[in-house]
Amino acid sequence: MQKILATKSAIPAAAFGEIDRPRFASIRPKTNPVFGGFAAFRSRACASLKALACGAMIAALAGISTGVSAQFAKPEDAVKYRKNALFVMQQHFGRLAAMAQGKAPYDAKLAADNALIVANMAGLPWAGFVEGTDKGDTKAKPEIWKDKENFRQLSEKFVVEVGKLKTASATGKLDDLKAAVNATAGACKACHDEYRAK
Amino acid sequence: MQKILATKSAIPAAAFGEIDRPRFASIRPKTNPVFGGFAAFRSRACASLKALACGAMIAALAGISTGVSAQFAKPEDAVKYRKNALFVMQQHFGRLAAMAQGKAPYDAKLAADNALIVANMAGLPWAGFVEGTDKGDTKAKPEIWKDKENFRQLSEKFVVEVGKLKTASATGKLDDLKAAVNATAGACKACHDEYRAK
Repeated sequence: MQKILATKSAIPAAAFGEIDRPRFASIRPKTNPVFGGFAAFRSRACASLKALACGAMIAALAGISTGVSAQFAKPEDAVKYRKNALFVMQQHFGRLAAMAQGKAPYDAKLAADNALIVANMAGLPWAGFVEGTDKGDTKAKPEIWKDKENFRQLSEKFVVEVGKLKTASATGKLDDLKAAVNATAGACKACHDEYRAK
Repeated sequence: MQKILATKSAIPAAAFGEIDRPRFASIRPKTNPVFGGFAAFRSRACASLKALACGAMIAALAGISTGVSAQFAKPEDAVKYRKNALFVMQQHFGRLAAMAQGKAPYDAKLAADNALIVANMAGLPWAGFVEGTDKGDTKAKPEIWKDKENFRQLSEKFVVEVGKLKTASATGKLDDLKAAVNATAGACKACHDEYRAK
């Protein structure tokens, strides 16, 4: 993973979020580089992570495609979308964390089911970080749009760690789950520390 | 589908939502029949729907498992969870509907990607309909918990239609997409008409 973080992204610059009504044309990002072509991301990420089941990761990342999540009727919808997707994911990740921390009994099937949901959704929230949506009901810091490349790398790192979490949850070994939960939580924290207001 | 709707459910009664803190024990459903064992649902639904790719449907329905989505720290989290999951789905379904209605250009890849996301999430919201959560920031009518079997059937119908939507979106034919979008929208409406306050 360090390789991905340290390497200059090969993802072509492209809109990662877009407002589709003319009245919001002023905040429509023309060349927002935070997320680019999904095919390029898939190719790079899968080449770097042979241990990951790329097919599953591809499904998880469907939302990263420029087009998939690229249309919001208004800026508030983009904010709501990313917050809602993150909340749903957090609920399922929280169940894995509870098992990893011994706060809930370890149940391998339950862990795998929850990790699958997290993996299926890991690519979604990022499309909601549309340029200009650092206002309103959000804790997103304006730095997200100043440090686009770093933000993109941190969210990619999260998606990759969630892919590993899914793999780890399928082994049926609590120690594997613990390690992957820790790594995923670290990826969450890295982004929150820099880009989420207290 | 009529068969499923007309047939008495074979799903064993079981909690479909659960609050995991003792202080909410009073609203913990002991034998909530709205959603039951996922294996039984899978077996029945897949037997009835040979045209559907059951594997994909199984993934989509992971959230229906009694255990997967069965823990919320507090009732408000259950309400927020179901609303958030529904909003994210609605955003992606809205993009399919726009194509079907000619409000957005038809893009087969985009349609398939959005349908996949809807399919991956279709099973999630229902775990949030925890007994006693007809209060607070919700439009959910109390009838949901009076008519549990009917509500369960309507949500199953929705999940099945979304499975067909995913299949239809993969054909690359706009007419297939239109038909499946209409059927899915009908499944949404059927539940909203009965169980969502205006």
